[in-house]
Amino acid sequence: MAKVQPRTLSGFMELLPAPQQQMERIMSILRETYSLYGFTPLDTPVIEASDVLLAKAGGETEKQIYRFTKGDSDLSLRFDLTVPLAKYVALHYADLSFPFRRYQIGKVYRGERAQRGRFREFYQADIDIIGDGKLDIANEAEIPSIIYQTFTRLGLRRFQIRVNNRKILNGFYGMLGLSEQSGDVMRTVDKLDKIGPEKVRSLLMDEVGVSAEKAEEILRFISITGDNAAVLSALESYRGRHPLFDEGLDELSTVVKYLSAFGVPESHFAVDLTIARGLDYYTGTVYETTMTDHPEIGSICSGGRYDNLAAYYTDKQLPGVGISIGLTRLFYVLNEQGLLNDQLNTAPADVLILPMTEDLTPAISLATSLRAAGIRTQLYAEQKKFKAKMNYADKLGVPYVIFLGEDEIREGMVACKDMVTGEQTKAPFAETLQRMQAGLAEKNKGSVIRSDGAEN
Amino acid sequence: MAKVQPRTLSGFMELLPAPQQQMERIMSILRETYSLYGFTPLDTPVIEASDVLLAKAGGETEKQIYRFTKGDSDLSLRFDLTVPLAKYVALHYADLSFPFRRYQIGKVYRGERAQRGRFREFYQADIDIIGDGKLDIANEAEIPSIIYQTFTRLGLRRFQIRVNNRKILNGFYGMLGLSEQSGDVMRTVDKLDKIGPEKVRSLLMDEVGVSAEKAEEILRFISITGDNAAVLSALESYRGRHPLFDEGLDELSTVVKYLSAFGVPESHFAVDLTIARGLDYYTGTVYETTMTDHPEIGSICSGGRYDNLAAYYTDKQLPGVGISIGLTRLFYVLNEQGLLNDQLNTAPADVLILPMTEDLTPAISLATSLRAAGIRTQLYAEQKKFKAKMNYADKLGVPYVIFLGEDEIREGMVACKDMVTGEQTKAPFAETLQRMQAGLAEKNKGSVIRSDGAEN
Repeated sequence: MAKVQPRTLSGFMELLPAPQQQMERIMSILRETYSLYGFTPLDTPVIEASDVLLAKAGGETEKQIYRFTKGDSDLSLRFDLTVPLAKYVALHYADLSFPFRRYQIGKVYRGERAQRGRFREFYQADIDIIGDGKLDIANEAEIPSIIYQTFTRLGLRRFQIRVNNRKILNGFYGMLGLSEQSGDVMRTVDKLDKIGPEKVRSLLMDEVGVSAEKAEEILRFISITGDNAAVLSALESYRGRHPLFDEGLDELSTVVKYLSAFGVPESHFAVDLTIARGLDYYTGTVYETTMTDHPEIGSICSGGRYDNLAAYYTDKQLPGVGISIGLTRLFYVLNEQGLLNDQLNTAPADVLILPMTEDLTPAISLATSLRAAGIRTQLYAEQKKFKAKMNYADKLGVPYVIFLGEDEIREGMVACKDMVTGEQTKAPFAETLQRMQAGLAEKNKGSVIRSDGAEN
Repeated sequence: MAKVQPRTLSGFMELLPAPQQQMERIMSILRETYSLYGFTPLDTPVIEASDVLLAKAGGETEKQIYRFTKGDSDLSLRFDLTVPLAKYVALHYADLSFPFRRYQIGKVYRGERAQRGRFREFYQADIDIIGDGKLDIANEAEIPSIIYQTFTRLGLRRFQIRVNNRKILNGFYGMLGLSEQSGDVMRTVDKLDKIGPEKVRSLLMDEVGVSAEKAEEILRFISITGDNAAVLSALESYRGRHPLFDEGLDELSTVVKYLSAFGVPESHFAVDLTIARGLDYYTGTVYETTMTDHPEIGSICSGGRYDNLAAYYTDKQLPGVGISIGLTRLFYVLNEQGLLNDQLNTAPADVLILPMTEDLTPAISLATSLRAAGIRTQLYAEQKKFKAKMNYADKLGVPYVIFLGEDEIREGMVACKDMVTGEQTKAPFAETLQRMQAGLAEKNKGSVIRSDGAEN
């Protein structure tokens, strides 16, 4: 038969079994953590009507959309999880209770130019809290706690949640009479990390048309650093000059005030006045999360407060706050940097049973008992040489192998080999089970992300 | 602003939060059960190159495909999880260990004519065991055990796994000299449940061209019923007349023999000679699963043994056995029939904290402690009247509400209301936590599928 060359499209992640297990572990931790904070899981279609999905889109985004017709329908694949959320909330408004807290982990599609580390199909893991008309600032204060818990549970130690407030920025530019240009100014300031303050100053003057004096003011403002108390105290000196600024400062102070009650250590949190987030969408607190030892990766979890989620679909005012993790890219980067914990048990089973008798009944009964006790068990029934069977166990990386021959069956014993230590025991079922359970508890202790040493 | 009417495409399931929680519970039980049997999770792209995906397809299937171009690429959305598995195994052959056991729960796409209960985007939940060259019959015997565990864990009691072997059928038709027409004969026999034996007889004679005598033989054969021992014994009387039949009978006997060691009660398993499964693909054991009280739903979990998974991509002989659950349709049907357990806790949180003080610090600290103890906790921070807050708690269906006012804070107490019994307690944190944990253990005991009475 003529063969078709099997291949997977470029820009589409397809993992081998062991890394897939790591990815599943990450997703399961995200689901658990988001649930702990009272977010409900949501699942919306990958395909939407183009007019619904693209109500807001335009420019770069629209070019990347996977859009096609089927019959009479003009369809598109979702390119993020925010537009589907807006549609969902507008459509099901009457059936939802607000504040509405949802998480969604799902694939989204962007036909970007293929290059290493860029994906056309990728998972986003989003949480959002949507209010009806209003939404209390406490919700914005809670987000850093969720970010902190999520990455800590994944095993990451050295990361920092960087927070700013768009009202502070917009109020500050208002003081300087630069409200009109504030978008351009923020985009320029955003380059600070990459090009340094002097380059920012000249861009502000030459390209945005800011006076030398005001450029100096801006540079002084964004160079405010230090611990949270120091930054807030420096910001207090601007109070009273612009109502929006004052409002933003109150909000930021509230967010900082509640940090420790929310369980976020100061070490993992910084007010950072250079953060604006590109989108005009955000109106209050904004968040970025960076890995201390890998700043080049950029933000691994970002988001912020917005005033109106679903303006394209409804007259209801639906303010919200949300964050998003680009999961596929995060996984790719962690893997590239060697940060995934390869000590993690990624085998498909905890134990492989090798029957040494022709009648498999005793081996099957043993497998059934082990499964009833919660042990992931594979029965190896193929007719192969012993060596081939052990090679298979090795390749899978199963923690335990059980041999069951005539002797063991007659004696009511189980011969069990720990594949890491090589130690082999022959003991009754209950004792073997207990030993495996203890061993597995130990082996499954590790986090997905390699422990990266001391706290920062 | 002009509004776009928010809508979800017809044929695409989009659930409200409570049923979505039930769906998530189902998926989580499937993942757990499949893992217990040593299957590894897999995730392949939703989009594949059309020539790869459609290597084998044709006819009805091809018409339903979502196919489109993006740039120069001819792309299609997957219509099942089997073709992507075949591609995966052929592509990653060198990196896999055989037998390769994988599960995959993912969305697939078929542009069927929209009608109630038919979905264009739906989840399939598949498991397959792929051998390299050979695959032992014990794997075929294990499948009913997985089906049994899966549905039992979901809470279903009254269901039956019906099993046949294609070799028995093909061997039997071989005995009658009907090998050429065996496909047509099986498709006709498959209608037995719907049209009855006399109609089958006339169709066999008039449309398939089978003689009256042979039609009689066929009807006698498929009317072999009774318990497993009785059916096997009746089949023994045909032994020695066709080698393929004998091989199939040996296989079926082995499957039945290992049933009880695999923990499958006789009550939930039946050899059923009328089952063939439409696909020519299957070559050995075939499976169907029916709900005893809802035969009209048809099979809720089907599959079988096949001799060559990936013939379109590779010369390797890759036999396998697998089953598939059409999850979206199953969920839809369970819901329609009122079989989903609405006593299940589907609230986004286990407890809602209502702070009664302006400073939220004590309430936030309490939320942090509860989350650290694994309690899904939502803090209600909005400025609303007490009644509105309680309405919110009611609508969400949270099992517990905690009130935290000045008194409680001063006394180091927590006021907690059980929203089902209405009972309200005031006790220290540790005591309240313990009470909630015990209560939640009880409330979360229920299965997803409503308990349907006595064992069948």
